[in-house]
Amino acid sequence: MPMVLGQNQYGKAENRIVRVRRDGTRHEVKDLNVSVALSGDLADTHLTGGNAAVLPTDTTKNTVYAFAQEHGITSAEDFAVLLARHFVDSQPTIHRARIRVEEYGWNRITTADSRNRFIGADEVRHSFVRDGGEVRTTEVGYDGERFQIISGLTGLVVMNTTASEFWGYIKDRYTTLKEAYDRILATEVNARWRFSWSGDELAPVNFERSYAQVKRHLLESFAETYSYSLQQTLFAMGNRVLNNRPEIDEIRLSLPNKHHFLVDLEPFGQKNDNEVYFAADRPYGLIEGTVHREGVEPVIPVD
Amino acid sequence: MPMVLGQNQYGKAENRIVRVRRDGTRHEVKDLNVSVALSGDLADTHLTGGNAAVLPTDTTKNTVYAFAQEHGITSAEDFAVLLARHFVDSQPTIHRARIRVEEYGWNRITTADSRNRFIGADEVRHSFVRDGGEVRTTEVGYDGERFQIISGLTGLVVMNTTASEFWGYIKDRYTTLKEAYDRILATEVNARWRFSWSGDELAPVNFERSYAQVKRHLLESFAETYSYSLQQTLFAMGNRVLNNRPEIDEIRLSLPNKHHFLVDLEPFGQKNDNEVYFAADRPYGLIEGTVHREGVEPVIPVD
Amino acid sequence: MPMVLGQNQYGKAENRIVRVRRDGTRHEVKDLNVSVALSGDLADTHLTGGNAAVLPTDTTKNTVYAFAQEHGITSAEDFAVLLARHFVDSQPTIHRARIRVEEYGWNRITTADSRNRFIGADEVRHSFVRDGGEVRTTEVGYDGERFQIISGLTGLVVMNTTASEFWGYIKDRYTTLKEAYDRILATEVNARWRFSWSGDELAPVNFERSYAQVKRHLLESFAETYSYSLQQTLFAMGNRVLNNRPEIDEIRLSLPNKHHFLVDLEPFGQKNDNEVYFAADRPYGLIEGTVHREGVEPVIPVD
Amino acid sequence: MPMVLGQNQYGKAENRIVRVRRDGTRHEVKDLNVSVALSGDLADTHLTGGNAAVLPTDTTKNTVYAFAQEHGITSAEDFAVLLARHFVDSQPTIHRARIRVEEYGWNRITTADSRNRFIGADEVRHSFVRDGGEVRTTEVGYDGERFQIISGLTGLVVMNTTASEFWGYIKDRYTTLKEAYDRILATEVNARWRFSWSGDELAPVNFERSYAQVKRHLLESFAETYSYSLQQTLFAMGNRVLNNRPEIDEIRLSLPNKHHFLVDLEPFGQKNDNEVYFAADRPYGLIEGTVHREGVEPVIPVD
Repeated sequence: MPMVLGQNQYGKAENRIVRVRRDGTRHEVKDLNVSVALSGDLADTHLTGGNAAVLPTDTTKNTVYAFAQEHGITSAEDFAVLLARHFVDSQPTIHRARIRVEEYGWNRITTADSRNRFIGADEVRHSFVRDGGEVRTTEVGYDGERFQIISGLTGLVVMNTTASEFWGYIKDRYTTLKEAYDRILATEVNARWRFSWSGDELAPVNFERSYAQVKRHLLESFAETYSYSLQQTLFAMGNRVLNNRPEIDEIRLSLPNKHHFLVDLEPFGQKNDNEVYFAADRPYGLIEGTVHREGVEPVIPVD
Repeated sequence: MPMVLGQNQYGKAENRIVRVRRDGTRHEVKDLNVSVALSGDLADTHLTGGNAAVLPTDTTKNTVYAFAQEHGITSAEDFAVLLARHFVDSQPTIHRARIRVEEYGWNRITTADSRNRFIGADEVRHSFVRDGGEVRTTEVGYDGERFQIISGLTGLVVMNTTASEFWGYIKDRYTTLKEAYDRILATEVNARWRFSWSGDELAPVNFERSYAQVKRHLLESFAETYSYSLQQTLFAMGNRVLNNRPEIDEIRLSLPNKHHFLVDLEPFGQKNDNEVYFAADRPYGLIEGTVHREGVEPVIPVD
Repeated sequence: MPMVLGQNQYGKAENRIVRVRRDGTRHEVKDLNVSVALSGDLADTHLTGGNAAVLPTDTTKNTVYAFAQEHGITSAEDFAVLLARHFVDSQPTIHRARIRVEEYGWNRITTADSRNRFIGADEVRHSFVRDGGEVRTTEVGYDGERFQIISGLTGLVVMNTTASEFWGYIKDRYTTLKEAYDRILATEVNARWRFSWSGDELAPVNFERSYAQVKRHLLESFAETYSYSLQQTLFAMGNRVLNNRPEIDEIRLSLPNKHHFLVDLEPFGQKNDNEVYFAADRPYGLIEGTVHREGVEPVIPVD
Repeated sequence: MPMVLGQNQYGKAENRIVRVRRDGTRHEVKDLNVSVALSGDLADTHLTGGNAAVLPTDTTKNTVYAFAQEHGITSAEDFAVLLARHFVDSQPTIHRARIRVEEYGWNRITTADSRNRFIGADEVRHSFVRDGGEVRTTEVGYDGERFQIISGLTGLVVMNTTASEFWGYIKDRYTTLKEAYDRILATEVNARWRFSWSGDELAPVNFERSYAQVKRHLLESFAETYSYSLQQTLFAMGNRVLNNRPEIDEIRLSLPNKHHFLVDLEPFGQKNDNEVYFAADRPYGLIEGTVHREGVEPVIPVD
């Protein structure tokens, strides 16, 4: 008995592209990893192997590179909007596109010379060191009518060495955890936030500036929150972003509690005055939650 | 302005547990990675840091180990059902539990002696070599009334060295791909399937046997399908599983097209008669799709 | 003041090659990752950027693919010998070559049909599932006169659920470990062994058969050794290989002690009768050692 | 026939330790991964399982944590010297110790407040964001008489978007590479350098300052070298470090050539004026070399 084909999508994933802008006084680089997923009238290729409605994944890859040359890359979001619009608007069989982008940051290498002198010195305008910090992400969906843009970051690791407690929780028969009145709180921030922008009739967003500000608010709210639970910190971070960034309607945070256990040094006749910790790998607490504006329907997927 | 707390969940992730059964003539091992996620009346801990409704993630970890001792581990699915039921039914503030499990397989080490003689030989009943193949997965959700079980596998890498073509697709201005009438088709099967079982009033499922049979049907249908597109292979695999396993209502497959490019040896005066390939890492095609029974509402999340 | 250039080498690393043999009744595949490193008269390129003595790394890549077509791949070792010899013997400026290979195993997919019938059935002769177990390795060095072949494996994970003790060790002021009279012993075998073969005047080695037998002896000796320390198991494994494989002069093993800690279930009123373990990630014991024939100078590098 | 036990070593690997100093106006953190390897009179444990000469790996772990409390961590190098000395000098059966350390950097989180005001503001003195850049490494060996310290870094990814050429190389029958007169040069710097310091009779080294300066010189020399081969860049980097850091006798660099291939956009009627690149994963060129002072015997191991 033949079964029913449900949701399906396809495309070329992880197209690694580096674009260099050389027209200014200094080179600029954008370093992206672009993944394309397309949906539409694709029953034939699944049921019979007939590919008349299929734009090859190889073509979606070519398009990424050609568009980078043709349009440049203002921001990952702007670039993804261009691509999503192209695939849906140019191909009758493609009804929905989702473009995901990871972006890797690069900082300029400054030299002794360049630090002491006029910045645009020839010898450093083309030299970069990769920023090993967080990876910036975006995902743009387009169905031919509306866009949906969810941007984010992964791998931003932060730590407070005090100002964190955890007590007053449920104790059942399996509870052995001791209450903590001064602990290390460390996490790897994984965040996704959705812009209210959904089409050209709305004012454009400066995505580069928005990203820098969201990151700043995440860091500052993590640092400034005296925490009684990682959940409290999570909400404070989401709340802070939404209160400061009107272009964003919703944010979801996934915060692994990177446990730092105080090492018991008593067997060696030592006191451990909150100084020496074992940084554990697994297991870890995992705290996830969405914060959104009132009246807004949250749509960022729950893992 | 305070914002609204949306969906949230928490728990201990990646509890690594190995359970040894020593009561038979031979030892048996179960090697699992268990992740707990709980939801419920958890607004307080987010908004004020008040933890009176919070069962600590550390307690959820302890419960995993205690349950393994108390109840044993018949299958990852059965174990996850026990845990999910416990958290929701025993804690008034917890309304939903989701238990995820990864399972790593182990094979017995056979020795020259054990191969030639009576199998239960003492010297090998306790020795194992890890099966490096696919990882078996399951995810059990429970809201106090119904269960939902989605099992699966990841990392099953397969290859057909012929019996694959790809042609007849759309050509637009960005298309350069040449049609292929005999290519390697290789993919890493990532699959998730949902059982119709949702509560004790229904007949129990033999999850161990079900898994072995689903895997067999995935492999056989991949091998036996003469393919004109990876989408066609995907549908054939899903269709085959559902036609043979009545306990399953829905399956979703994610199949990266692991490209093997024929190397151009003409510059060296050689002919490459489909013998020498470059196995590429990135980018790769990514083909995803759901197959389900008629009348069934598919619920396995789309990435 | 200019400094001195010391040892240097260069080449193309991680050339991923899949070779299909289609001339038999069934297809055969070899799946390799080949890395080339060359040394010689290379001072100029370092000191002045003059490349007249440099065979480009891109050329070394091309050679790997061309040789696979021209000579086939009998074994990773034989293929590496061919490549090493070619680079040194054909290029006056190249005096030493080192070829490293990783090999990934593939098993045939058997179907219900093929299991019940004549094996060479058309429909399965071209279908494979990757063996996720250990990775086979080799490294061939050649200086224009002698070859040195060091083969090995990585990632072979094994476990004994009993027959392991550890006691009678030194206790100093930092020792808290309790003696163990029945513990799980688990490790990931990483091994390298050197063949005595060093040139064409010696009898050729059947490297495929040798590998299968070394692996068998490693597994069997791990399983059959009643262990008082992982060091004892290490020596037993090395000793067994050398006693059974005359073509090998020396073997080095690196065995991480993958700790499985018995979980304390007493707080929950349970007894843990060596049944429930926590499988830890880090830290881990790391036991390394060489075993060699008397009179042989061991040369496998110590990490 | 029993075989001979060759070089062997053991210890606890990857002890993850975070030490917080709270005695100043601001917290300070050291985040290390410490691996211990010991050698000595260890034949018995290998040959008979007799452990009377074995200091347990668990004890070596405890010692790491106890020493962090007792002595603090001035630098990874100083800490490793303390540990190595302790194991060899306190245990008659241990004749050689090797301590490896990876160090992960953390930067302070600055807030709007702290940026505008007096820096030591209470609210940020305990908040950190992990520096995702390079990992700092060290390895200290001690045989009871002399120390050997080899420090380094891994994962420092750098790129020049011009000022790199590659031409004038050997062309053999397998060469197809086109000469390049303006290419991207990108690499991940992996470096190890050996200090001349070997014992207390010599002037102590300020390892923190030394590290910062070596890193600066590596970055600056990469940026300032107009390159005709990555080998030339490698030598320039090593030469620069040795010329500026008298405490260092020898340096070895391993530089993967992270290829950025210009995308051919001609099929789409576009010109690619060195703007759009494909960043490839594998294969990659791998350039390795040692630079040392005249009269010094280089000892950093060759891979």
